[in-house]
Amino acid sequence: MDKPQEECGVLGLWSQAPLDVAGLLHLGLLALQHRGQEAAGIAVTDGKEFLVEKDLGLVHQVFTEERLGRLRLPGARMGLAHTRYSTTGSNLRFNAQPLTARTAHGVLAIAHNGNFVNAKPLRDRLLQEGATFQSTSDTEVMLLLLARLPHLSLPEAALEAMRRLEGGYSILLMDRKTLLALRDPHGVRPLAIGKAPWGYAFASEPPALALLGAEYLRDVRPGEVVWVEEGELQSLQALPPNPTPCAFEWIYFARPDSLLDGTEAYAARVRMGEELFREAPAEADMVVPVPDSGIGAAIGYARASGLPLEYGLYKNPYAGRTFIQPTQELRDLKTRLKLSPTSAVRGKRVVLIDDSIVRGTTSRHIVALLKEAGAKEVHFRVSSPPIRFPCYYGIDTAARKELIAAQKSLEEIRAYIGADSLAFLSEEGVKRAIGGPVCLACFNGRYPAGVPEEGEKLALELL
Amino acid sequence: MDKPQEECGVLGLWSQAPLDVAGLLHLGLLALQHRGQEAAGIAVTDGKEFLVEKDLGLVHQVFTEERLGRLRLPGARMGLAHTRYSTTGSNLRFNAQPLTARTAHGVLAIAHNGNFVNAKPLRDRLLQEGATFQSTSDTEVMLLLLARLPHLSLPEAALEAMRRLEGGYSILLMDRKTLLALRDPHGVRPLAIGKAPWGYAFASEPPALALLGAEYLRDVRPGEVVWVEEGELQSLQALPPNPTPCAFEWIYFARPDSLLDGTEAYAARVRMGEELFREAPAEADMVVPVPDSGIGAAIGYARASGLPLEYGLYKNPYAGRTFIQPTQELRDLKTRLKLSPTSAVRGKRVVLIDDSIVRGTTSRHIVALLKEAGAKEVHFRVSSPPIRFPCYYGIDTAARKELIAAQKSLEEIRAYIGADSLAFLSEEGVKRAIGGPVCLACFNGRYPAGVPEEGEKLALELL
Amino acid sequence: MDKPQEECGVLGLWSQAPLDVAGLLHLGLLALQHRGQEAAGIAVTDGKEFLVEKDLGLVHQVFTEERLGRLRLPGARMGLAHTRYSTTGSNLRFNAQPLTARTAHGVLAIAHNGNFVNAKPLRDRLLQEGATFQSTSDTEVMLLLLARLPHLSLPEAALEAMRRLEGGYSILLMDRKTLLALRDPHGVRPLAIGKAPWGYAFASEPPALALLGAEYLRDVRPGEVVWVEEGELQSLQALPPNPTPCAFEWIYFARPDSLLDGTEAYAARVRMGEELFREAPAEADMVVPVPDSGIGAAIGYARASGLPLEYGLYKNPYAGRTFIQPTQELRDLKTRLKLSPTSAVRGKRVVLIDDSIVRGTTSRHIVALLKEAGAKEVHFRVSSPPIRFPCYYGIDTAARKELIAAQKSLEEIRAYIGADSLAFLSEEGVKRAIGGPVCLACFNGRYPAGVPEEGEKLALELL
Amino acid sequence: MDKPQEECGVLGLWSQAPLDVAGLLHLGLLALQHRGQEAAGIAVTDGKEFLVEKDLGLVHQVFTEERLGRLRLPGARMGLAHTRYSTTGSNLRFNAQPLTARTAHGVLAIAHNGNFVNAKPLRDRLLQEGATFQSTSDTEVMLLLLARLPHLSLPEAALEAMRRLEGGYSILLMDRKTLLALRDPHGVRPLAIGKAPWGYAFASEPPALALLGAEYLRDVRPGEVVWVEEGELQSLQALPPNPTPCAFEWIYFARPDSLLDGTEAYAARVRMGEELFREAPAEADMVVPVPDSGIGAAIGYARASGLPLEYGLYKNPYAGRTFIQPTQELRDLKTRLKLSPTSAVRGKRVVLIDDSIVRGTTSRHIVALLKEAGAKEVHFRVSSPPIRFPCYYGIDTAARKELIAAQKSLEEIRAYIGADSLAFLSEEGVKRAIGGPVCLACFNGRYPAGVPEEGEKLALELL
Repeated sequence: MDKPQEECGVLGLWSQAPLDVAGLLHLGLLALQHRGQEAAGIAVTDGKEFLVEKDLGLVHQVFTEERLGRLRLPGARMGLAHTRYSTTGSNLRFNAQPLTARTAHGVLAIAHNGNFVNAKPLRDRLLQEGATFQSTSDTEVMLLLLARLPHLSLPEAALEAMRRLEGGYSILLMDRKTLLALRDPHGVRPLAIGKAPWGYAFASEPPALALLGAEYLRDVRPGEVVWVEEGELQSLQALPPNPTPCAFEWIYFARPDSLLDGTEAYAARVRMGEELFREAPAEADMVVPVPDSGIGAAIGYARASGLPLEYGLYKNPYAGRTFIQPTQELRDLKTRLKLSPTSAVRGKRVVLIDDSIVRGTTSRHIVALLKEAGAKEVHFRVSSPPIRFPCYYGIDTAARKELIAAQKSLEEIRAYIGADSLAFLSEEGVKRAIGGPVCLACFNGRYPAGVPEEGEKLALELL
Repeated sequence: MDKPQEECGVLGLWSQAPLDVAGLLHLGLLALQHRGQEAAGIAVTDGKEFLVEKDLGLVHQVFTEERLGRLRLPGARMGLAHTRYSTTGSNLRFNAQPLTARTAHGVLAIAHNGNFVNAKPLRDRLLQEGATFQSTSDTEVMLLLLARLPHLSLPEAALEAMRRLEGGYSILLMDRKTLLALRDPHGVRPLAIGKAPWGYAFASEPPALALLGAEYLRDVRPGEVVWVEEGELQSLQALPPNPTPCAFEWIYFARPDSLLDGTEAYAARVRMGEELFREAPAEADMVVPVPDSGIGAAIGYARASGLPLEYGLYKNPYAGRTFIQPTQELRDLKTRLKLSPTSAVRGKRVVLIDDSIVRGTTSRHIVALLKEAGAKEVHFRVSSPPIRFPCYYGIDTAARKELIAAQKSLEEIRAYIGADSLAFLSEEGVKRAIGGPVCLACFNGRYPAGVPEEGEKLALELL
Repeated sequence: MDKPQEECGVLGLWSQAPLDVAGLLHLGLLALQHRGQEAAGIAVTDGKEFLVEKDLGLVHQVFTEERLGRLRLPGARMGLAHTRYSTTGSNLRFNAQPLTARTAHGVLAIAHNGNFVNAKPLRDRLLQEGATFQSTSDTEVMLLLLARLPHLSLPEAALEAMRRLEGGYSILLMDRKTLLALRDPHGVRPLAIGKAPWGYAFASEPPALALLGAEYLRDVRPGEVVWVEEGELQSLQALPPNPTPCAFEWIYFARPDSLLDGTEAYAARVRMGEELFREAPAEADMVVPVPDSGIGAAIGYARASGLPLEYGLYKNPYAGRTFIQPTQELRDLKTRLKLSPTSAVRGKRVVLIDDSIVRGTTSRHIVALLKEAGAKEVHFRVSSPPIRFPCYYGIDTAARKELIAAQKSLEEIRAYIGADSLAFLSEEGVKRAIGGPVCLACFNGRYPAGVPEEGEKLALELL
Repeated sequence: MDKPQEECGVLGLWSQAPLDVAGLLHLGLLALQHRGQEAAGIAVTDGKEFLVEKDLGLVHQVFTEERLGRLRLPGARMGLAHTRYSTTGSNLRFNAQPLTARTAHGVLAIAHNGNFVNAKPLRDRLLQEGATFQSTSDTEVMLLLLARLPHLSLPEAALEAMRRLEGGYSILLMDRKTLLALRDPHGVRPLAIGKAPWGYAFASEPPALALLGAEYLRDVRPGEVVWVEEGELQSLQALPPNPTPCAFEWIYFARPDSLLDGTEAYAARVRMGEELFREAPAEADMVVPVPDSGIGAAIGYARASGLPLEYGLYKNPYAGRTFIQPTQELRDLKTRLKLSPTSAVRGKRVVLIDDSIVRGTTSRHIVALLKEAGAKEVHFRVSSPPIRFPCYYGIDTAARKELIAAQKSLEEIRAYIGADSLAFLSEEGVKRAIGGPVCLACFNGRYPAGVPEEGEKLALELL
């Protein structure tokens, strides 16, 4: 998919009494599936047994009835879960999360959304000290740091590890007794706390809490460590907060119904569309969203402009799940499988709304589809600025040389995608729509939470 | 799903030169997946070998890479495919289509959308004459009739069989040489003809033709038999046409981008929304569609009323693919998995738009969700009349006693679903929006193509 | 495997009270797995529902826990089962048995071991009369004949069908009420009757009866139809008996512990070894069986000769279940996977005993293995005559041109397999060891139950 | 199965030029399948990529075509493989071998047959120093020790680790460059070296070498570390040798055709049978082996006694692969599935030969089968002494309280199994048959290579 790829969703729960922990986490993971489609995992414990199941695949592929059955401990009261976008091939099954390790703290499991920018130098030092790693994931460095602090309690050890780690991260961590939630001092990735009749839950986005039967309480604060002790929510402000949450969560990643740091994604998207019309109006007959990512901004643009909204592109919900033999004959036809235009666009001047452009290939294809279906003009409007820089905090935006906005001018992009006009929303427009300080590093290269020394996110792969 | 269930989609192609027939049909089936999600099948031939693969499941479940590979005949030039909604359990694998039989005509394969209302008396007579059946599907009766006419050509035999069969049906049929397309005299189910550089194709809906690389040529006419002979499209008007195509194709079943008998589904849906506002306006702050089925009518209603359209319900695209353990605890939470409201509805008077109401359970659930999310009022508007009668022509509308509109008054329905007001579009409104004669039997009980003697669609099951 | 391939095993049971029919038949099928390894199936009924599960593969591959679960009817009292050696590829899944058909008798299921030599002319006539076939199996002709006799009871119709069919066959047949067992007038294939506390059972070989908890009662007589009526075993001598059971059942096919028409296979094999020594003694140091098929005869040969028996060839029980990539490198090594010699043969003169030679390739490989392991001489002794003719009664002996004994003289065979001497048991020796009239057609070309007109067993394939 | 369970087989190869490493190791594993049936794994490297595939199941279940395909590196020159008998449930997938770790030496993989008796104290100390473990296997302690020696070469580090580890073990170890083979100073478990045209191979038993195309060169010596450097086999006598190889390898575990420390298993088994007759003759009519484990000793007993050998028990090769529903009805019948008697035993006095008795349940069942089949007397002879003590060096003999010989007198055992007489071979008899010093700890409790402090093999499970 020609969209930035979120790297993960995390989810966890702590209950006072035995519960169908695996069943609830499985249900909740389905509400976080959009945050990562390449691997999924669940860990549960009843205080004695500690079970983990994880594999490459979508949640419904990994968690067959049989596999879920293996996780059902009658006395289970705690667990955590993860859904992952992994950047490489099938042989990286060992990077699926939760990661676990048997340490002096007992068994630990960790689920992580984000990236540590100083993972490589930390890992190199640990290796020289005799450490063993099971994965090439930066997440494992956190586990190793905890194992090296056997005389601290788990919350204290987590606080100490946060002092040594840099980057953007939201983390859930558990041993046989305690469930912890950690968020980096910039709060780059979201992490919400929920209160349920049976206890507490944590999730990347509040709608996943609802599926556990928990009510949204508040967000974990930037720099905070939260955990449950004797049924009470405990908190430690590990590091001073300096909030710059990722703007892309509101632009594209988060579900429309997610409330993040006080602002709902759908509302922000509608406002981005309104801002976009103010910055870049177009003479046209209708507004057409690219489904489903452009719907919120298209509603805003239509509302601000007074132009009619038309559902001019049909998205086949069954496309993309299937195997297509890569013959040239079929590949050419396959591009028509996912999206197809309705006749509403025939003879019309269309404002086409999408949330972002990465490589430009899909945008080019959609403009061509509309023209072929008889659209007289296509005015492409994008509800975020051009993506020109890599993200080091948990998003895969594609390599720099593949980012069309890092390689071409606005006019060159317009010509490439074949639109009659093209405009992006400004950084100011994004900030106004969201209404607070945000990380815009992928647009402007200003990284609030550090960058890797080597400027290379995946340097851990080659041990 | 609390929606009427279409029974089938059909697809076939004839090529002058060898082609990746299985690959193309597989691709095209994905464009017809919405017409049937319980079984899928493909038959191909190169004039000598005749291969069939079919099973219960979605297209992407049935057609794994391995299974598709088994169908790839190097010299294949012809094939047909089917996607099915079957009404009963897993042991009815033998009813998956295409059905085949080895007869005096050689091997025959058939794919069928619709129902024969006189299947049972015909089958009883055939059995007394020594016939053997492999399935409990009414479709097989057509195969048996053809086998009994060994001295006619296949088009002549098909014409003769059509004279004996009553009901609403669109059928594709092939032997090792010829591909035929048949449509009943009322044209109840759709069937389109496409022209490709390599030959001809037939499909329930035109967007499937596009995926085969074929252009929409025209519809098969009610009562017509069409086939390809020496590269030329041949036609026989088997029975006099008396067109009353099914209104539900435009209301809900067909893809929005499908052109059926001259009218596009999306355009008809927008007009239904406009008619609905004219018939049943509401004092409100916004129009919210039930995604995705209510989107077209909501756009029409919003446009006609001048009220803002809001995407107030988020539909999780990953819901419904997964196994959920049926504990009470999880079942209650699962209802939140599929749909969840955005904050746009808080404190607002909402016009909620859906295309139809069958049992009312889902409608009741959605109204409750909106109220819980803070909607002040919910005015439910339905872009079709109340469903009160069973369909005998290929749709499963649920048993009569489950149809809420067959059991309750308008006011009782409103009270059950918890809406502040409720209105359905009139039959006249539907006809105006579609613009021609249509079958409205499920609304008014007037059946243009006959009814079964016993008034019982599934009487074949119990042989 | 370079052995003649049995085509089938059949199994059925009738109980007065509900029973775990599917579970019992599954267990019993495992005792008949040696009779067919390419497909397996079970049909069960409770008098109302009629369920069938079948597929290509071994019994344990076809009958997963889930699939067996689908067959468990709480009130089931009757069922039949089949294990098959099919002669062609994966697309012939439709030939797996039990075959079923819905007829004027209701649903019928059939399981068949053997072949009808006049299937083709019968089928051609039925097709001209409007019949439809679902498979290319000769077995289906029997079902069609029964369907054409709607006014007879099932036993009467079976008798009538037997009058029209020629060949060697043992058949189990059932509708929702009655279970029938049929054996051709020559009794070519075995079929045994068992009596259990709950009712009656039928099986190709008695050890399968033991696994159902039934005691061996007697064999079905050649030309007899047996069925259960009101709890009583009923019998009809349909055709006059003329017994010539297949000698290969004793030579190789049947389990050693099977009692067939009064003679146990193991005892007959030991006697064949004793006869073989008398006909063809050898100057040697030890007798080595080819495991497992040569063990019985080797014991007889060693006993008669006074030479020590040595287990000089180890057979790996895990070979043959796995996928081996067909590179030349691995193929060469793979031949060592199945059999390997022990050091007992080093420096010795070995009498190597096998039950038969088909193509000679395996024999040649084994002789080479022994010589490589240091055997000074290898005297090959075969406990049956040379196979020179095809079987038309249910065994696949390989095509005539592949039969080494149909192509080469004794001395040429000896030279090809590299033995120092070679001898086969005589037809008289076989008859003495078994002790009654037997079919020896594959050795001498004298066919007691007719031959196909076209001399072509698989002529049905190409409809 | 009521037999002692071997814990593992190991296999590895080093080649000068690229080779189908995964294909060869897979083939070779099939020759070691008898050493462990619960998990299998293969690791391969081309000097850069390092791939591992492993899972619970038999070799043919784990290594599907697809999974084997994932291991095929074009430039692969080295790899190792493992087949495992794991002592606990399905959630212990993480204990499947090869185990791997990323260390300062780079990636390491290890495959292990045997046990370290001091694993627990070593692990506890490592944990206090901050180590992380991925499994509950004692094997991982070796990996951790190696990781702590980053400044030594891998052979030097292995030698140093061997100084700290006690117990009985044969180990293969590799990084991206070097393949090492280690054997404990008592040589408890076997380990053979092979020479192939392309390089060197190591395997638990020589027949696996033959499947790689390698010739048996010699055994790894007790206390030796062997590895390949610049194409030359290098060796280090790490610890002084004190050979006491496990007697059970010859009694039961090893394949009959395996040459272990100079003595072939089949020959030793025949001699055990001969010794057994000398120690415990019986008045009888025939000798019947329990297939397949009693065959060698039965041949020896028959030869020494002059009594005829009869293949009086048929072993169904298809039993045991299938799922049997655990209803009482079927469980009772299932015991007949695996073994059934031939009529040879009717009216006879039988000497029944097996290699060992663990719980006695199977022995009791077999005696009952023979009596039911008409055997007049059954004289049970066992070709090894009574098992009374647990093994700490890699064999699972069942818990002490389940060992019938640890709980009952000879006469009580005889009465329990229902034999007319019973005798076991003496320790002296075993030693004479094998011909050298052997470990007999499971018979006499004298442990040559130490015992765990806690006397508890699985103490690692509960971290």
